[in-house]
Amino acid sequence: MDYAKESLRLHKEWKGKIEVNATVPVATREDLSLAYTPGVAQPCLEIEKDISLSYELTRRWNLCAVVTDGTAVLGLGDIGPAAALPVMEGKAAIFSEFAGINAVPICLDTKDADAIVDTVRYLAPSFGGINLEDISAPRCFEIERRLTEELDIPVFHDDQHGTAIVVLAGLMNALKVTGKDRGVRIAISGAGAAGLAIAHLLAAYGFTNFRIANSKGILSADQPDLNDDQREVLDLSTAAGVWGGGVNLLDGADVFIGVSRAGLFGAEDVRRMNSDPIIFALANPVPEIMPDEARRGGAAVIATGRSDFPNQINNALVFPGLFRGLLDGRVPRVTTAAKIAAAEALASLIDAPTADYIIPSIFDERVVPAVARAIRGVEVAS
Amino acid sequence: MDYAKESLRLHKEWKGKIEVNATVPVATREDLSLAYTPGVAQPCLEIEKDISLSYELTRRWNLCAVVTDGTAVLGLGDIGPAAALPVMEGKAAIFSEFAGINAVPICLDTKDADAIVDTVRYLAPSFGGINLEDISAPRCFEIERRLTEELDIPVFHDDQHGTAIVVLAGLMNALKVTGKDRGVRIAISGAGAAGLAIAHLLAAYGFTNFRIANSKGILSADQPDLNDDQREVLDLSTAAGVWGGGVNLLDGADVFIGVSRAGLFGAEDVRRMNSDPIIFALANPVPEIMPDEARRGGAAVIATGRSDFPNQINNALVFPGLFRGLLDGRVPRVTTAAKIAAAEALASLIDAPTADYIIPSIFDERVVPAVARAIRGVEVAS
Repeated sequence: MDYAKESLRLHKEWKGKIEVNATVPVATREDLSLAYTPGVAQPCLEIEKDISLSYELTRRWNLCAVVTDGTAVLGLGDIGPAAALPVMEGKAAIFSEFAGINAVPICLDTKDADAIVDTVRYLAPSFGGINLEDISAPRCFEIERRLTEELDIPVFHDDQHGTAIVVLAGLMNALKVTGKDRGVRIAISGAGAAGLAIAHLLAAYGFTNFRIANSKGILSADQPDLNDDQREVLDLSTAAGVWGGGVNLLDGADVFIGVSRAGLFGAEDVRRMNSDPIIFALANPVPEIMPDEARRGGAAVIATGRSDFPNQINNALVFPGLFRGLLDGRVPRVTTAAKIAAAEALASLIDAPTADYIIPSIFDERVVPAVARAIRGVEVAS
Repeated sequence: MDYAKESLRLHKEWKGKIEVNATVPVATREDLSLAYTPGVAQPCLEIEKDISLSYELTRRWNLCAVVTDGTAVLGLGDIGPAAALPVMEGKAAIFSEFAGINAVPICLDTKDADAIVDTVRYLAPSFGGINLEDISAPRCFEIERRLTEELDIPVFHDDQHGTAIVVLAGLMNALKVTGKDRGVRIAISGAGAAGLAIAHLLAAYGFTNFRIANSKGILSADQPDLNDDQREVLDLSTAAGVWGGGVNLLDGADVFIGVSRAGLFGAEDVRRMNSDPIIFALANPVPEIMPDEARRGGAAVIATGRSDFPNQINNALVFPGLFRGLLDGRVPRVTTAAKIAAAEALASLIDAPTADYIIPSIFDERVVPAVARAIRGVEVAS
């Protein structure tokens, strides 16, 4: 199927993928006197006395904003806020169908980090959680950090942490398949939102032997053009010597994690890796290396972002269940412990991982409740 | 019924009066490839080329934000953004049920006019229209004015213009009932959002013989504490001489329009008005003068904001149809001509007005289409 053409045809027919509906009757004067004036004054006054009642008396308990500035949409880049709407509506539809969460696309006509932070801060009282989406690096780091500090509702940049959580889950099971341990050498391609978040989470889990490259080559602390977030990640790495430097990113690596762009590597690059290499080639829609090419190079485990190959690393494995847990538990922020718990929950859904089955399907009905439970469990424990 | 108690009980049971749902399937990999990645890239790219396609390929064509800062909620005053949520959800439910419009409550945690303007400006790409609600005067005037100038989607402060449109419609028919004409002396009680908007719209329709009072008395241009918006309205008045000044607001008036507070006037005040006085006592839930008291004073036509008396002046007669028209016609702003057209459409739904029937019921099914047609008709004509 020509997905582009058929999707466009369907979007014209659909004219929107979500809708906002009343759930209470407003068909008679009495209905209106209860759902609206004069009766509605009473719940208003209760919330004025105790703001936490906004979670009892309104939809806030189940309402999430999907916020973007349209600067890093899919592989399309900076297409602007209105053009980002179809993606945000798609995400809201997934929130609704996968986890029963009400989500509203909020596409912002500004790229200024201060303005984005202020805007989200101002509209927070209407929502129970904020899903930041498709905001380009490095602004996304600052925006998420400041909002997490300032708000008492959870803020989660899915492109960073959703990806990182699924990667960690997949890696846990890939190591079981290959008999490798946490000392593995990990080569990350991509030093933007996803790449840095992956490095952070892997390091927190004890995978510190990593190096990371962007389109200019392998990052090292003496490069003047690194941003603060890249430097911070390099400080977490214990990779040293030749492996710490190196020329070809894949030389001597056990694990390749690509969140960069199509076709960077071939079978010959995989052959330069250690035995039983693990390849997560997540660039969409065309991976850094195609699965058949990676297999020809000797890859033991191969994952992509695509649904037409085994082992799909897809954020939809995380964000519905994660927000379900955040909202149900009224969890104020997503800690590193919570991210690790979510990854462990995902990984443990597979009793006996194999090369072609390291991560559950997004349609596996155990996924959302398992991730939600993990997020709430951590909250209760901490 | 004790509406306060029963409404609170129901709000606890409801846990929200609106919900956001998917309208397209996302149950299979193919569904996701069409509603989400990779297919969704195509509608994104189309909108990037032509932003107006956001009205064809997303829900934007039917999506309205109900924006408040929670400073002037019902008669409750400044109760804050979270406490305003039950009202905004009620309004969104009415949008949905009365006019099939998808509306999202956006309650802002700032009272700063610049911040509110910026925030609404930033989130505008997600919406087809902005309903400003329960923002206190005089900030509401500046906020609406600036947003109307800066945005290419319609912005409508319902507390001002919704009220003004229904008042004008009611007055048109009340004059028919009493045989009075546009020269009538009109006494307005309340110089905030609603009072000033009513004066503006009446003046635009040719009712310039008005005076206006706030809690300190009748406004005159030599008072130093007037704000610019109040001065601007006084400039529109042609009231002069004793009537221009006066002591009791109602002395010699033909029409009283109250958008102020409970129990300001009694039968003896109505007796000081001209013959066949028209009384619109719109303070909620207790009017400036109760209908039986006004009748005892000789009132010929009496309207209130309440559903338990005849002639209910209710904004719900306007905002659903008005936004239906704005959205369907992709009308960029609400002109004075459009407001007058909406009032005429409402008034003309009653062939032969009587003292107890000057305005249609909010449940009259002709109301929404008539107002929507009027708004679109003006757009086409101008």
